[in-house]
Amino acid sequence: MSTRSVGPEITRLIEMMSKLPGMGPRSARRAALHLLKKPDQLLAPLSRAMADAAQKVSQCQVCGNFDTLNPCAVCQSGGRDESVICVLADVGDLWAMERSGVFRGRYHVLGGSLSALDGIGPEDLNIARLISRAGEVHVKEVILALNATVDGQTTAHYVADQLETIGVKVSRLAHGVPVGGELGSLDDGTIAAAFSSRR
Amino acid sequence: MSTRSVGPEITRLIEMMSKLPGMGPRSARRAALHLLKKPDQLLAPLSRAMADAAQKVSQCQVCGNFDTLNPCAVCQSGGRDESVICVLADVGDLWAMERSGVFRGRYHVLGGSLSALDGIGPEDLNIARLISRAGEVHVKEVILALNATVDGQTTAHYVADQLETIGVKVSRLAHGVPVGGELGSLDDGTIAAAFSSRR
Repeated sequence: MSTRSVGPEITRLIEMMSKLPGMGPRSARRAALHLLKKPDQLLAPLSRAMADAAQKVSQCQVCGNFDTLNPCAVCQSGGRDESVICVLADVGDLWAMERSGVFRGRYHVLGGSLSALDGIGPEDLNIARLISRAGEVHVKEVILALNATVDGQTTAHYVADQLETIGVKVSRLAHGVPVGGELGSLDDGTIAAAFSSRR
Repeated sequence: MSTRSVGPEITRLIEMMSKLPGMGPRSARRAALHLLKKPDQLLAPLSRAMADAAQKVSQCQVCGNFDTLNPCAVCQSGGRDESVICVLADVGDLWAMERSGVFRGRYHVLGGSLSALDGIGPEDLNIARLISRAGEVHVKEVILALNATVDGQTTAHYVADQLETIGVKVSRLAHGVPVGGELGSLDDGTIAAAFSSRR
């Protein structure tokens, strides 16, 4: 285009929006346009919310959670059981666990799963810190709440091996039929696991 | 949750992200987490791009385009044919037209389509300003590039009627088979339109 019809600010906004997960060039343009149409109700407040988060949120030095406090609110809370640590791959998993409301202990976020394919080894994950935390005298149990994928289970095996050396109790989430799940749409592995763990 | 496990800044970020088109609570959490993981490469720059756009971009008083200039770069450009005005429903359509590179005249953005269902009447659209622009002595043709939907075509009819009174030439985009489109996947209306307009 010989004359500029879309200004650099708009081009930049679209380009940055397209870096969000699940956004292609088309949906990024659509989102940018939606924002531009509501500058005061949406664009400016979203910008401020992002600036706020960028400035105040950091990764907890103890467990790897994201929070404005460091150590995070979960690690600082006196109301949570410090004898149990729930190990997760990702902060998103921690959020999911909190939404379920079943767990009242502490967390530890590994920051990913072991993956030979992606070249992610034990030293790339927050494992050393977990071993040191699990060795503290008040810790009675470590729950491995890792993904039921090949990489997730590889990671669980590796972490369990490491924890065995320090003699702490290690448990894992049960496999089975998801609540609301239909048998016909489940894979063989899940059905087999649910069958062999029947109560 | 009795203890706060996700801080207010993160909650607010997720809530704002979920207002983007196509984002549900789940994808908003995913996007927020993605941003939090890259505070310096993504979260802060995106926030700045948004603040920049919110501060500098406005709607062109002549044609309704979004730009940092007002009148916008297209309206100000001496290199574009001011005898032709292309009428569009939305700024997104203007961007699409510019990407195609076929049009070198001026634009006019209506800001929507007439819709009895949504209660959008002629006074809600940027139509009065179009009629006044189209009446200027240098304007020879108005191209109605409106959506091929019921609302879009209703709007085109209405606008064409208004323009008839001032005696300017009015044209519309052709209907037909989209380039790359397969006949078998087209609706009857498109095939009928393409057949009757065959050359």
